[in-house]
Amino acid sequence: MRILVSNDDGIHSKGIYELVKALKEIGEVTVVAPLTEQSAVGHAITMKIPLRVTEYYKNGEFFGYAVDGTPADCVKMGIRNIMKTPPDIVVSGINHGSNTAINIIYSGTVSAAREAAILDVPAIAVSVAAHRVENFSYAAETAVLTVQKVCKYGLENGTLLNINVPDLPKEKIQGIKLTKQSKAKWDDIYEKRVDPYGNDYYWLKGNLVEVDESEDYDQTAIKKNFVSITPIHFDLTDYKTFLKMKEWNIETNR
Amino acid sequence: MRILVSNDDGIHSKGIYELVKALKEIGEVTVVAPLTEQSAVGHAITMKIPLRVTEYYKNGEFFGYAVDGTPADCVKMGIRNIMKTPPDIVVSGINHGSNTAINIIYSGTVSAAREAAILDVPAIAVSVAAHRVENFSYAAETAVLTVQKVCKYGLENGTLLNINVPDLPKEKIQGIKLTKQSKAKWDDIYEKRVDPYGNDYYWLKGNLVEVDESEDYDQTAIKKNFVSITPIHFDLTDYKTFLKMKEWNIETNR
Repeated sequence: MRILVSNDDGIHSKGIYELVKALKEIGEVTVVAPLTEQSAVGHAITMKIPLRVTEYYKNGEFFGYAVDGTPADCVKMGIRNIMKTPPDIVVSGINHGSNTAINIIYSGTVSAAREAAILDVPAIAVSVAAHRVENFSYAAETAVLTVQKVCKYGLENGTLLNINVPDLPKEKIQGIKLTKQSKAKWDDIYEKRVDPYGNDYYWLKGNLVEVDESEDYDQTAIKKNFVSITPIHFDLTDYKTFLKMKEWNIETNR
Repeated sequence: MRILVSNDDGIHSKGIYELVKALKEIGEVTVVAPLTEQSAVGHAITMKIPLRVTEYYKNGEFFGYAVDGTPADCVKMGIRNIMKTPPDIVVSGINHGSNTAINIIYSGTVSAAREAAILDVPAIAVSVAAHRVENFSYAAETAVLTVQKVCKYGLENGTLLNINVPDLPKEKIQGIKLTKQSKAKWDDIYEKRVDPYGNDYYWLKGNLVEVDESEDYDQTAIKKNFVSITPIHFDLTDYKTFLKMKEWNIETNR
């Protein structure tokens, strides 16, 4: 099995290192990841400036290709240019921090996997729910298990799996849940500060406010110490509203 | 009616100027837009560096607030900070270039409207299908019409309308269609070049490949000279795959 690995924390991060180590047990791994951290870049792609690719070494050994762009750039570059034929699967992560609820829109980790799905390659995004992660090993184990399940059962073109793992040792994990995207949202505000030159500037801060109680939702599942696996896609059409709008009398035709 | 206007081409662009001019006829307009062009940034938000807001003047008159961030940052800043209470509607555009099919994932224009929908404010994104736009006036007219329709019929929280207008004078527009997101995709490749110092670099290029023929799809509708209006949302859960995966036997519970 040929596996392309990317992330959004950058090629130097601990999360991608742990993921690659685990996936090498089950396949041939190619790493194409951002040269620098790219958190919260969403599905940005680089079009107005050219990209550069450099070989990246860890502990004196070739580790992978670093791209001076976004996670989506890396996956596009990996599939379209670096690998001679598309990989069997793309795995993005392991992210430092959860990617649940509305955060899957902002997330570079999820966008890397989504770019693969756009290019008709099955894909998985893996995140651990803590910014200073202590336990990567169960997340890596879940990534391996899920890759094996995808190989066995297949995934429809355009679907990716978004996995979130609590930051706990294996014996404290409650189980694995199939989930839906939570409706939890940020109560964010901008904190105003003044710089040493008397000019205002603003920091974004806030908390994710829970609205779902069922473990069927990604955010609730990880709160209850379950691994959450959510299938997501990129057909954003709101079919319910589409039908409702037929009554708006807005359509015209010469 | 209080209207917040943003875009991704930057506060200096012609498209936002034409949009603001038209919307001022029907409401009180506040502009919060990126200081610099932010095309293809997707739903990036700025978290690791602070934002600055400056007052921006056009022709000696106050035009709006410029934020040194992304389109999503601008809408968040406008709703959370600049406006004392949330606006009745957010309108993003008028974008120079279409935002149909998979491009709605990459688009800063659509992401600005999506950020509003996330914050429970009705929103519209408006784009003209040409990079060197000659006809903004019918797009501006359609924006006004759609704002009026949204006020009359309402939009569910979490839904936004993505409007694309052919670059034609009004008399050549075929009509207005309610549409779904097309499945058209990019056949993109990276063109390799060598810089004056002998180093390789890569430019992304490609064409959007049509796969849908029905005018029910955004991309096809504008090709046939219709205005396309697509309702989109941000619940990315793939419910079909969710049900299918129940047979994967991947769920566990202690």
